[in-house]
Amino acid sequence: MKRIAVLTTGGDAPGMNAAIRAVVRFGINRKLEVMGVFRGWCGLINGDLRLFDSHSVSGIINQGGTILKTARCPEFHEEKYQERAFQTVKKNNIDGIVVIGGNGSFRAAHSFYQKYKVPVMGVAASIDNDINGVDYAFGADTAINTALAAIDNIRDTATSMERVFVVEVMGRDCGFIALSVALGGGCEDVLIPEKKYDLHEMCHAIVEGNLRGKVSWIIVVAEGAGSAVDIAKQIKEITTLETRPVVLGHVQRGGRPTAFSRDIALNLGKMAVESLLNGVTDKAVGLVAGKIALVDFETAIKKKEYNVDNMFNLIKVLS
Amino acid sequence: MKRIAVLTTGGDAPGMNAAIRAVVRFGINRKLEVMGVFRGWCGLINGDLRLFDSHSVSGIINQGGTILKTARCPEFHEEKYQERAFQTVKKNNIDGIVVIGGNGSFRAAHSFYQKYKVPVMGVAASIDNDINGVDYAFGADTAINTALAAIDNIRDTATSMERVFVVEVMGRDCGFIALSVALGGGCEDVLIPEKKYDLHEMCHAIVEGNLRGKVSWIIVVAEGAGSAVDIAKQIKEITTLETRPVVLGHVQRGGRPTAFSRDIALNLGKMAVESLLNGVTDKAVGLVAGKIALVDFETAIKKKEYNVDNMFNLIKVLS
Amino acid sequence: MKRIAVLTTGGDAPGMNAAIRAVVRFGINRKLEVMGVFRGWCGLINGDLRLFDSHSVSGIINQGGTILKTARCPEFHEEKYQERAFQTVKKNNIDGIVVIGGNGSFRAAHSFYQKYKVPVMGVAASIDNDINGVDYAFGADTAINTALAAIDNIRDTATSMERVFVVEVMGRDCGFIALSVALGGGCEDVLIPEKKYDLHEMCHAIVEGNLRGKVSWIIVVAEGAGSAVDIAKQIKEITTLETRPVVLGHVQRGGRPTAFSRDIALNLGKMAVESLLNGVTDKAVGLVAGKIALVDFETAIKKKEYNVDNMFNLIKVLS
Amino acid sequence: MKRIAVLTTGGDAPGMNAAIRAVVRFGINRKLEVMGVFRGWCGLINGDLRLFDSHSVSGIINQGGTILKTARCPEFHEEKYQERAFQTVKKNNIDGIVVIGGNGSFRAAHSFYQKYKVPVMGVAASIDNDINGVDYAFGADTAINTALAAIDNIRDTATSMERVFVVEVMGRDCGFIALSVALGGGCEDVLIPEKKYDLHEMCHAIVEGNLRGKVSWIIVVAEGAGSAVDIAKQIKEITTLETRPVVLGHVQRGGRPTAFSRDIALNLGKMAVESLLNGVTDKAVGLVAGKIALVDFETAIKKKEYNVDNMFNLIKVLS
Repeated sequence: MKRIAVLTTGGDAPGMNAAIRAVVRFGINRKLEVMGVFRGWCGLINGDLRLFDSHSVSGIINQGGTILKTARCPEFHEEKYQERAFQTVKKNNIDGIVVIGGNGSFRAAHSFYQKYKVPVMGVAASIDNDINGVDYAFGADTAINTALAAIDNIRDTATSMERVFVVEVMGRDCGFIALSVALGGGCEDVLIPEKKYDLHEMCHAIVEGNLRGKVSWIIVVAEGAGSAVDIAKQIKEITTLETRPVVLGHVQRGGRPTAFSRDIALNLGKMAVESLLNGVTDKAVGLVAGKIALVDFETAIKKKEYNVDNMFNLIKVLS
Repeated sequence: MKRIAVLTTGGDAPGMNAAIRAVVRFGINRKLEVMGVFRGWCGLINGDLRLFDSHSVSGIINQGGTILKTARCPEFHEEKYQERAFQTVKKNNIDGIVVIGGNGSFRAAHSFYQKYKVPVMGVAASIDNDINGVDYAFGADTAINTALAAIDNIRDTATSMERVFVVEVMGRDCGFIALSVALGGGCEDVLIPEKKYDLHEMCHAIVEGNLRGKVSWIIVVAEGAGSAVDIAKQIKEITTLETRPVVLGHVQRGGRPTAFSRDIALNLGKMAVESLLNGVTDKAVGLVAGKIALVDFETAIKKKEYNVDNMFNLIKVLS
Repeated sequence: MKRIAVLTTGGDAPGMNAAIRAVVRFGINRKLEVMGVFRGWCGLINGDLRLFDSHSVSGIINQGGTILKTARCPEFHEEKYQERAFQTVKKNNIDGIVVIGGNGSFRAAHSFYQKYKVPVMGVAASIDNDINGVDYAFGADTAINTALAAIDNIRDTATSMERVFVVEVMGRDCGFIALSVALGGGCEDVLIPEKKYDLHEMCHAIVEGNLRGKVSWIIVVAEGAGSAVDIAKQIKEITTLETRPVVLGHVQRGGRPTAFSRDIALNLGKMAVESLLNGVTDKAVGLVAGKIALVDFETAIKKKEYNVDNMFNLIKVLS
Repeated sequence: MKRIAVLTTGGDAPGMNAAIRAVVRFGINRKLEVMGVFRGWCGLINGDLRLFDSHSVSGIINQGGTILKTARCPEFHEEKYQERAFQTVKKNNIDGIVVIGGNGSFRAAHSFYQKYKVPVMGVAASIDNDINGVDYAFGADTAINTALAAIDNIRDTATSMERVFVVEVMGRDCGFIALSVALGGGCEDVLIPEKKYDLHEMCHAIVEGNLRGKVSWIIVVAEGAGSAVDIAKQIKEITTLETRPVVLGHVQRGGRPTAFSRDIALNLGKMAVESLLNGVTDKAVGLVAGKIALVDFETAIKKKEYNVDNMFNLIKVLS
């Protein structure tokens, strides 16, 4: 193995630049040449890539986003475009690819590997922390802290103005961010895709609490479990209490990565290169039980299983 | 003058606790007794107030929200309730009132003073910085920095994913926050209530920029100038570029006050008490030309006039 | 078991309030009465404690420090004072104690348990993350992020002014903070108590780098490995490069706890109470391999063993 | 005037990049060519400069430090080197220079103008806010907020552990940062170069407070008024209370500029270019009474005069 390529795909996650840095510098340290591919799979299709040196990744470790840019690349599902990507790989003598991204990225990487047998390793990056088989993808810790800062701010107003707030956080299929910020923010309730909820029951509890003298609530909802705007409207109608929605949206995606996001990203980036050098392929690296570990792409792309009840119940007991 | 009361009304603003601290401690320093009134005018109506000492305001200078709570109090428009508030004032031997709040608060304070001649001073607190006659109300600087941090985060994704973002910030009648964050965030455009805009023209400019190679935009919109959700939808339709809305909402209202917000809040709080002691009444204190100054309530509650064009043009030139 | 007590001892750590909240609310949820003891062991000695209810811990989850206060309590080493503490325990019908703190706290707790057989559980709180047998004590993640923010700031100046900076972070016996921020900050070198270093060799490498065109360095030093002021002086003498020390000190101890610090603190607090209810005693709870786990006090108070080389080598490869 | 140059000198200040952006883009907007000079006056001496375009300043508005680098350049005091700088100016057809920096920079700029009559405008950048004749240089607001965040953190520990802290902030000749953070942080005392203080008297007040039950103090000291390490040692000796020093140092210099720092920097940058176009020279631009204004270099480099007593007294009254 003499030359590898690195690309970032799917939604950007804080720590992607740290991961790129680790791939490039650790690769060079192991006598590899490392090419940076721009705009994810599109860059492979279009030959949009160039050789990186150590300086190419200076001063980026604390920057959100990705210097390699990222793009959703639907045409990569078509064989014609996969073939073009493979031509780029051959033409540039690329012996292995590090794909930094999430579920969708791994699905594409797995399919590409199956067809062309170019060694490929995934680095688990996900705001939502929705990658199955790993406890932590990088990016999630930053997104959670960003959302938590927002919740802390909202608490000031909730308490001062005695209101109900419904705060929508990221998480299309996975309630991890919602659970984490509801727990850390001392929130009163949390709605996640993994658990059915009964809005009338929740409103009943709010009204009962209000009769006992409770005056403010923050209810966190994962985007996959409902719309804060709709839910707030319903709560207001049912309880008659002033209720306001907040939708945090893309604010959660960017920003300076936290120490933990950088730490995971750097270690995963290193491990992906090391794995390629050891002949490993078709797998993702992620944090499992506090350690960097390998997970088959086939496992990683399944629906995430994790202990939802532990966090959920603790939120309820402590609120 | 032996005893004054302090209350916070309208939406909470970061720095209200600092202002309360200044009123209480400066008042005590000048041999006054100071009562804290809870939930704004409602507290006066309901007799929800108590004597504060120096310790009552310990450890709050860096906290968002208001320990006095705040409430919109529509019943205060009715004479019956104003009369009850006046009875509370008399019963508690209150010789003057410091009202910390914004336009609505000053309107109520002015009307209360006109009827009952209880000396009253306003302290200009406003996220939106929409109080006429003052350059800075406290709270705005914190809200602007919170929104700017969000913009900086979004820029990471806008650049990495090459997208258009429409970010809605607070500002119902006043585009000050929008102008400030658009300028500080290096944003491409800004829509404010003070200026008509032509969405088609803006989209035309976006498409032209895109043809020249520009790939990301952040457009800031004050809530009073339109809905980010609607505008993003239209931009996407017209330009066909991926466009996402972000609505920052109440996140901008809370949080640790910035140094500048604390500084203004503390100085205004002091000045309000000093003014009462000097026999001044029916006025608000705010920052004018870098100095603490008095503004008649009648002026303060008018539509804010300020140099919109300077900021607006600079944004356009620098983007 | 009907009534337990909770106290915080040693240096304060961000998340202590979250842990107190969990102990109190989870205890009450399990039908226990919970007493808050003020100023650590001193509070037990002096009978400085009171019954807490659910409201006693409202609004503290996002606050640094500890509402129970903390104190170093050297007199607790004397039997006379331990006896007085035990009398407080008996008089107040306390059936178990949760001690939130670090090594020193656990040593005292262990000794107290050995003598008086009052069930006692420790909650691993440590800025330095120096508690043996656990991967993460709470507090460390916040301290690391605070230090990392400082490093990011210093990088701006190091790069702009082309200087060498020596940044001293906390860690008397344990280089964990130093390693974490050196890794996450992309720092050039790190000096920790666990590894001997040769200042002349380091200076030699700096001079060589300088000849190759490198112009800025950030070197992180754990307080237990040397003084930034002294080391900066020596580097300047040997290399003749402008070198500045920064000593972050107690800034690292306070502040809003991060999501991860809150998460660990809440889960540990819950687990400590659950353990007491299950008849467990004389142990600490901490995060091990990503899960809450029990560690004998005797293990916890030993010198921490952890994989220093992994982090150390990665820092060197990536810098 | 067809071509101007811009350089940053002295210590870096947050907002320098924003100022550079404004000079470059506003210059281009006014049909000027703009050259970026690297490493301050050294860059002029060594011909280290290049033509900038609009893209040269993309993505820097929110970055601390300066992309132009900065350097102290003692050789610029010698005529020989000034002559070389002038040759660079002539050779590159530079018709005017914008110098972004503080007192030292303006002194050099003034002297250069006096000799060679090359039009030169200064942009007031200073962490310490020590430029005479202007209310705000840019950079100070960011430094103050950074220091204030540190003070807020320290307050957590001061309160929890009941200690005295002495916190040293920047400010060699000017106590502005110290006054601002002492006011905003609710600190108990402040020592500044502009005011003599009696340590014994302060210690006496501390002991008296302690006898009344007060248990924690934060005393802010500007670096020009003494060393926190020494002062803490003396306080401990005299009062016997546990006293700890914190020296914030260069952490205050870097970091994302605040909204206010960006706002001032952008407006000053624009105004400097506009002034050159209007034939103005030998002056600095800064914020005066809330507006951008011109100040003669001769005034700007004098010892700053400002209302120290107002802030000082308010701190005392409110603590």
